[in-house]
Amino acid sequence: MNIDLNSDLGESLGAWRMGDDTAMLDIVTSANVACGFHAGDPAGILATLKAAGQRGVAVGAHVSYPDLVGFGRRNMDIASADLVADVVYQIGALQGLAGAAGTRVRYVKPHGALYNTIAHDERQARDVITAIRAVDPGLALVVLAGSPLERWAADAGLRVVAEAFADRGYTPQGTLVSRREKGAVLHDAQAVAARMLRLVQEGVVEAVDGSLARVRADSICVHGDSPGAVAMAASVRRTLEAAGVALRPFCGAAEVAR
Amino acid sequence: MNIDLNSDLGESLGAWRMGDDTAMLDIVTSANVACGFHAGDPAGILATLKAAGQRGVAVGAHVSYPDLVGFGRRNMDIASADLVADVVYQIGALQGLAGAAGTRVRYVKPHGALYNTIAHDERQARDVITAIRAVDPGLALVVLAGSPLERWAADAGLRVVAEAFADRGYTPQGTLVSRREKGAVLHDAQAVAARMLRLVQEGVVEAVDGSLARVRADSICVHGDSPGAVAMAASVRRTLEAAGVALRPFCGAAEVAR
Amino acid sequence: MNIDLNSDLGESLGAWRMGDDTAMLDIVTSANVACGFHAGDPAGILATLKAAGQRGVAVGAHVSYPDLVGFGRRNMDIASADLVADVVYQIGALQGLAGAAGTRVRYVKPHGALYNTIAHDERQARDVITAIRAVDPGLALVVLAGSPLERWAADAGLRVVAEAFADRGYTPQGTLVSRREKGAVLHDAQAVAARMLRLVQEGVVEAVDGSLARVRADSICVHGDSPGAVAMAASVRRTLEAAGVALRPFCGAAEVAR
Amino acid sequence: MNIDLNSDLGESLGAWRMGDDTAMLDIVTSANVACGFHAGDPAGILATLKAAGQRGVAVGAHVSYPDLVGFGRRNMDIASADLVADVVYQIGALQGLAGAAGTRVRYVKPHGALYNTIAHDERQARDVITAIRAVDPGLALVVLAGSPLERWAADAGLRVVAEAFADRGYTPQGTLVSRREKGAVLHDAQAVAARMLRLVQEGVVEAVDGSLARVRADSICVHGDSPGAVAMAASVRRTLEAAGVALRPFCGAAEVAR
Repeated sequence: MNIDLNSDLGESLGAWRMGDDTAMLDIVTSANVACGFHAGDPAGILATLKAAGQRGVAVGAHVSYPDLVGFGRRNMDIASADLVADVVYQIGALQGLAGAAGTRVRYVKPHGALYNTIAHDERQARDVITAIRAVDPGLALVVLAGSPLERWAADAGLRVVAEAFADRGYTPQGTLVSRREKGAVLHDAQAVAARMLRLVQEGVVEAVDGSLARVRADSICVHGDSPGAVAMAASVRRTLEAAGVALRPFCGAAEVAR
Repeated sequence: MNIDLNSDLGESLGAWRMGDDTAMLDIVTSANVACGFHAGDPAGILATLKAAGQRGVAVGAHVSYPDLVGFGRRNMDIASADLVADVVYQIGALQGLAGAAGTRVRYVKPHGALYNTIAHDERQARDVITAIRAVDPGLALVVLAGSPLERWAADAGLRVVAEAFADRGYTPQGTLVSRREKGAVLHDAQAVAARMLRLVQEGVVEAVDGSLARVRADSICVHGDSPGAVAMAASVRRTLEAAGVALRPFCGAAEVAR
Repeated sequence: MNIDLNSDLGESLGAWRMGDDTAMLDIVTSANVACGFHAGDPAGILATLKAAGQRGVAVGAHVSYPDLVGFGRRNMDIASADLVADVVYQIGALQGLAGAAGTRVRYVKPHGALYNTIAHDERQARDVITAIRAVDPGLALVVLAGSPLERWAADAGLRVVAEAFADRGYTPQGTLVSRREKGAVLHDAQAVAARMLRLVQEGVVEAVDGSLARVRADSICVHGDSPGAVAMAASVRRTLEAAGVALRPFCGAAEVAR
Repeated sequence: MNIDLNSDLGESLGAWRMGDDTAMLDIVTSANVACGFHAGDPAGILATLKAAGQRGVAVGAHVSYPDLVGFGRRNMDIASADLVADVVYQIGALQGLAGAAGTRVRYVKPHGALYNTIAHDERQARDVITAIRAVDPGLALVVLAGSPLERWAADAGLRVVAEAFADRGYTPQGTLVSRREKGAVLHDAQAVAARMLRLVQEGVVEAVDGSLARVRADSICVHGDSPGAVAMAASVRRTLEAAGVALRPFCGAAEVAR
């Protein structure tokens, strides 16, 4: 029994720090690395990629709408020609930096508003899929478990990696509780860790109404942008390992080591 | 007898047009394509790359300091860690877009202030060389013929391509006349074409003082950002072809066709 | 009988030219000047403001979402705190430059996607109104004639200036024909000029179905970003003047001269 | 006996935090507020301006080269037309936001590389002076005590405010020890506070060689971008107050209260 832990990294920008990449790279097995459109400057991204490569952590392109001030969290009505090219540009830039860092980009995980939008917006979803296939059809796409995007990407021939969120509440249908509602975000590190263990062992997570929601996930997303978040991520890892769950990149540890 | 013609392309930005890429791609054999730091948005760059690929025009990364408003023409005191990573990022981004366009990046030509600076500033020159080698040591570097950079790059094992400028005046020593001095820029399309033919055939160009300067060039840079510039570039091509000079990419036409 | 002619100016960016500001400033009576968020760099904006001031052309702040690559034409889901502050920032920046140019900002006209959105989206409309009032409640707001924004702004105590578009088709209800439908954009300069004369004299414009739509406008927007556009704008001005309609800024020529 | 304490604030950017503006606004009497070119987004700047206004802290425009990724710390070879307009734009934008926050911009303090450059580069210094005078000749200019800029600005009719740096070492000539040399930055909060008290009382500061350097300062710059920095700033304030030195804005507390 094994699982992947992923987290958003490389999100500092010039003089501005965000998160503790080194601490998180000792916890996770896959790093979603910013590509400069919502966060990350080239030198900072390169440093994070080197640290990931040294630890055998798999690297993915955390592509975004072009929006530094909004941190990629604002929906944007972007034309297909722009979205396709923006995603290709970001993956390519990260591939260049990853090569310079001695590692390789294995997957793509859209960020923020783009992530949320393509989970259900077919036009933008297909643009992202087109972009990934244009660069390298072997790149996996990390998607929200249970979203329509899961099928669109699979139908297009992409390897799809479904992810669950460690600190988010779930509806009985296995979708995320909206951030505007109660129970959307969980704060108890031990409870979160126990939930994720059950997810891995039984394929279920307790929903906000106490029922059990079925969630199929290949990876668990943990956050690292606050001291509490790093501690929660570490708790998830410890709990899983103590129960005999192996933590390894979904793309394969051997693959990353090459 | 053969020579390469190169030009700066892909320099439009969103709603702003610059140059006539299609017209120039029918004239040149190598296209220095903007990478988004001094000019170019991903969708526009992708369109230019597709047009280049369709015509068998070789593609190079026209890397720059990060400076859209200054069009990369302002000197910038940039740290090595930033310069190396900025250049890697830009080459990688262009490689991604080139792959999506069905072509490949063959070389790097720095733009504007970065081009001028590394022609003689060893620290920044070595940063650019380091960046190129980190991405792909097989990429050629286009340099100002006769500049110290030529040797630094060759010593580092890079393939060096020396270029002459069709519309620029030369000193008796074979260097460019400063833009602050008389005779820096030439405007007569026929005279320019005749100079370039002599350069190719005899390896000399008439300097501002009437003497002959020895200039060894593998490529001739022509501009295309005005109607007059396109006409001058076409004149250079016609004159060379009429004299039996073959125009082909310095990286090899067969190589580009693959 | 008099009317104002307004146009979008100051939209060049660094090395990229857009429109012919000097030609247009000889035609229009009010200039909507870019503020750096969708177009315009400070030095270029300043030059346009000086040229406007010298001609007695009134100046307005052409505020936008922050989106250079998209030229402010992409809808953006922006929080109220950001939208209010973004608009205040832009008006203030233009006021600073206008003062340095010897003129003053008289009004605000939102640009592109922001213009279209606040014509009917009350939340963003109120944010823009809040921003204007926070800087100077004496600034007028140019709005789409007949849109809900007209009332929201008036209710908030702003001076409202309704505008018609010279080259756009109208529905029988007096709203613009969508750009996705036939008849949205008109290309015959003489016909356009005749329509605008009728608008000024009779308060009606012929709709796409041949009926007469009632449109109350204090200003007519003409475009200037192509040679044809400048000619059309000149045609509108000549036709109005020949019929004895005085062209002057809606804020008052005497006011601008001060 | 009185003195002003100033600090750089408003330097967060979207999701990125920098410094503790609220803590610092309880310590300083003048706030150099970022204008969006090296740091600061409009909504964050506006919040800082409101907090400054509520506390009677005077506000200055912390203008910079346009360089977010480099945090305005990189020298840039910028043309006069651009530098003048960039500075006017930034002051204007801050004036707009300050008005919306119920306060006013009283002075200008250039940031980072621009600050260092104009301390001795006359061309760029005159550009900044021109810009300030074009917006409002009543704005003061904060300069490095003892620099040539002090005289250039005074000769141009600007009110000049000389500042000393609390945590920097001084040469016997009263200039700053270069950051490349030993003794450039001081870390002992108590020692720093004692130095500043002596500066205020006797007009001297102990130089790196133990001699006494004469420094005439109207304001003391303290930093606030780390917990240690805030504590040091508080220590300076406490020490000065305990010795009976009144802390008040150089532009006058009554003036700010209006």
